Amino acid sequence: MSSQPILIAGKWRTATSRKTFTAENPATGERLPEEFPVSDWADCDQALAAAAAAARDLRQVGPTQIASFLKRYAERIEARATELVAMAHQETALPKKPRLADVELPRTTDQLRQAAAAVLEGSWCLPTIDTKLNLRSYLAPLGPVLVFGPNNFPFAYNCVAGGDFVSAIAAGNPVIAKAHPCHPATTRLLAEEAFAALGESKLPLAALQLLYDIAPENGLRCAADSRLGGIGFTGSRPGGLKLKAAADGAGKPAYLEMSSVNPVVMLPGALVERHSQIAGEFVGSCLAGDGQFCTSPGLVIVMAGNGTEAFIQEVKARLEAAPPSTLLSAGVAKQLAAAVESWRRVGAVLVTGGNALPGPGYHFANTLLRVEGKAFLATPAQLQNEAFGNASLMVVARDPAEAARVIEQLDGNLTGSIYSDSRGADDALYADLAPRLRPRVGRFLNDKMPTGVAVAPAMNHGGPFPATGHPGFTAVGIPATFRRFTMLQCFDHVRPDRLPVPLRDKNPNGQMWRLIDGSWSQASVVI
Amino acid sequence: MSSQPILIAGKWRTATSRKTFTAENPATGERLPEEFPVSDWADCDQALAAAAAAARDLRQVGPTQIASFLKRYAERIEARATELVAMAHQETALPKKPRLADVELPRTTDQLRQAAAAVLEGSWCLPTIDTKLNLRSYLAPLGPVLVFGPNNFPFAYNCVAGGDFVSAIAAGNPVIAKAHPCHPATTRLLAEEAFAALGESKLPLAALQLLYDIAPENGLRCAADSRLGGIGFTGSRPGGLKLKAAADGAGKPAYLEMSSVNPVVMLPGALVERHSQIAGEFVGSCLAGDGQFCTSPGLVIVMAGNGTEAFIQEVKARLEAAPPSTLLSAGVAKQLAAAVESWRRVGAVLVTGGNALPGPGYHFANTLLRVEGKAFLATPAQLQNEAFGNASLMVVARDPAEAARVIEQLDGNLTGSIYSDSRGADDALYADLAPRLRPRVGRFLNDKMPTGVAVAPAMNHGGPFPATGHPGFTAVGIPATFRRFTMLQCFDHVRPDRLPVPLRDKNPNGQMWRLIDGSWSQASVVI
Repeated sequence: MSSQPILIAGKWRTATSRKTFTAENPATGERLPEEFPVSDWADCDQALAAAAAAARDLRQVGPTQIASFLKRYAERIEARATELVAMAHQETALPKKPRLADVELPRTTDQLRQAAAAVLEGSWCLPTIDTKLNLRSYLAPLGPVLVFGPNNFPFAYNCVAGGDFVSAIAAGNPVIAKAHPCHPATTRLLAEEAFAALGESKLPLAALQLLYDIAPENGLRCAADSRLGGIGFTGSRPGGLKLKAAADGAGKPAYLEMSSVNPVVMLPGALVERHSQIAGEFVGSCLAGDGQFCTSPGLVIVMAGNGTEAFIQEVKARLEAAPPSTLLSAGVAKQLAAAVESWRRVGAVLVTGGNALPGPGYHFANTLLRVEGKAFLATPAQLQNEAFGNASLMVVARDPAEAARVIEQLDGNLTGSIYSDSRGADDALYADLAPRLRPRVGRFLNDKMPTGVAVAPAMNHGGPFPATGHPGFTAVGIPATFRRFTMLQCFDHVRPDRLPVPLRDKNPNGQMWRLIDGSWSQASVVI
Repeated sequence: MSSQPILIAGKWRTATSRKTFTAENPATGERLPEEFPVSDWADCDQALAAAAAAARDLRQVGPTQIASFLKRYAERIEARATELVAMAHQETALPKKPRLADVELPRTTDQLRQAAAAVLEGSWCLPTIDTKLNLRSYLAPLGPVLVFGPNNFPFAYNCVAGGDFVSAIAAGNPVIAKAHPCHPATTRLLAEEAFAALGESKLPLAALQLLYDIAPENGLRCAADSRLGGIGFTGSRPGGLKLKAAADGAGKPAYLEMSSVNPVVMLPGALVERHSQIAGEFVGSCLAGDGQFCTSPGLVIVMAGNGTEAFIQEVKARLEAAPPSTLLSAGVAKQLAAAVESWRRVGAVLVTGGNALPGPGYHFANTLLRVEGKAFLATPAQLQNEAFGNASLMVVARDPAEAARVIEQLDGNLTGSIYSDSRGADDALYADLAPRLRPRVGRFLNDKMPTGVAVAPAMNHGGPFPATGHPGFTAVGIPATFRRFTMLQCFDHVRPDRLPVPLRDKNPNGQMWRLIDGSWSQASVVI
């Protein structure tokens, strides 16, 4: 059987390399039939050239066409939903319902439609006009964006349909998509629909190239290529750090979502007040997606005491009562076991779980470990290794002062939560600990678990290094996500008919907010 | 004579190292009397610790106090203007009038006052509120900012008074200032006023630390230190790239303005129409600040022809008629001569100048070189080395197609200009070349020289690598410059009285624009 074609320069064509791979069904461990190519440098090179040409063409395309593509693509995904859900289920073992069909697929089409609305409205690019100086600036397209999709959201973060793809296109950039090799066929189906929607919307067909897999060294070579604008990456920390180094050396913006243990601090009063309720919330969050969410609560900080022991026992009971689901791949299962072992080597002890479960497929017992605050402070780096999957670590600090020291050893994270007594018993402690946690995380929560990342303008799915590569940007939340894939462009004394549409005197749609002479306005410029 | 004290943790104190340096008067080459310390790691370490503590304190300070500091500091600079101008003149040889007293000092105080107004108004931090989800985000302070000032603007880019300082403080961050060793005494005077204004405004006194000089390895160590938030740097490309590598490895945002040759493309019709006028503009821009501006037009692209030869002859005559001014230092003079030599080695020929002039002080003949387009295309990297000072290179392309290829070899630059015939004769050529030049520069000009960087909201003093370290940000133009020194912080379900003021239901000043449920508004949130 010949391997699936790749998409380059507006054509589906055979990859130049003969090297191939297949995905597998993680529920059975069986190989799936379709063969996909591992592209060599020749494919990467052609993808870069095609995307660079498409970047020039896309600059001539107005917001109406881009929005039309995004909406048409959403409709096409919905029309093929049954097939997409079946394929994604086969490749990821994620439940068809509610997860894939009722949650993730609608979320994906909602992202496309929110982006279409933001593109038409247009204020996201912060158009700024100083009339006296005839100086005008906005956030303009950055150039071709290389998107690496993760394993855990086959639709909503897919390299040809998810948040990075949507943001890059909405900001006016072509995409070079590198599929996650765990779900290539799902990606193929989505890319077919994207490609058809490009044609229907009269966008440049080379606005999307798709490669199913590439050798790591070719990824690094792409990252440093002069034709590339920037990178959107969601994946592991080691892979992300290598890409970052390559992109940094070439001065390319790389937006990387790499890892996070999402610390949750439980203050004593909260556990006294409602330890059973909190245990339920925590276990629900831990096991959402079998713990394979970027925002899974992997590290809990509590203070020693009777309430805490009751809380831990309740969490243990709930974890043991819940059936573990299927992990995404053999690799995830192997790395999860290794992470738990690495915690144990530096002093963490098992409360429950800790072992792989028999097949077919990849399963791991729901797992909780605990460690004293003192031990955590002795090896904070190792105990912050992310265990991607259904395992969490509880750090039991001796007292509030030790909890403060634990928090001050935390790396950058996507999220951080503090649970406190609703009647004020924890307020003084909150006031001491919150300022220590707040600058270490992108999204800070009160009395709430971090899973459940709404696609909303105020969302931040980002955070300080090494959670991401830059603390100023988010990977979820339209339209802020668009700003990653832009460059600031100023027009100084440029003749009126040569200006980009958002910077002309006339407000392009009567609703775009622009900063005119220091004041936000929806009016046209009157000189 | 003992060396000047450094400023750390709210106290002027003796540096721990005994190593010192002195500045010199570039007009005479004579050493100036004051001795300044070269700080060792102990000073850096203490500055980082003090700044980290001040960062926490500054988060408790409201916009009124920060604005009050900025305004008070401006008044103090004005009150000491005569002494400041005399000192800066002595250390830089820049003319007292108009440059230092009438242009740069007022620009510096204007920056402070613009920043104060933007801080009070507050919209710059893009407060975003989604009421249904109770999700709120804004651009929050990043943490201590290490500011490296350049040699060429002793006031307006000074590490304790210039754009980076102002932006870091306005965004709520303490500054660790590393003075430029060419004007330490000017920096001392400014820091004294800043320090006094901090006290008068009841800001944390450790909001500013000042080190006069540090070894490069200690700069790199600071850049990677976990206590640091980010970096603002204006200086040479080699120094900037080393800092960038150190900061990138630690995941710290570094905003670096490193070098630019600011290409100017002269289309044939423009030279036919007004070559004498353009020659005047070009020579005026080349010699502004003796060519020691970041935006000096160092590379001109013209097409072969009679109009071009007449233009070059007119530029030559004007350069020869203008008296060269004094360069900023022995180092600038040496590097300028080396850059001109490096151009000559790869085929550029002298049109005029090219040699150092006799002392006292540092002077270089006004210099123009030319090179054929073909030769430029053979060694584009070497011919884009910035010659910081009064020297420019003219690339004579054989025809428009070769000019296009020359433009496509250009590195990222701060600015790029195109001059074209005012009646439309160059329009087709403009349409071909402008899209090639536009993505390579931060500020794009028509019929205008790049020098003269207005402090205005729409300004972009930034550009693609290697002009800067990130193409999305600007070093001039309030309030956009503030955004460099921030991180995106989201508050999810955080109790109302624990929210930062810009994100509370009540609009804090009745005028702050906030994106509430997807619409920009100056209203309070009504739930």
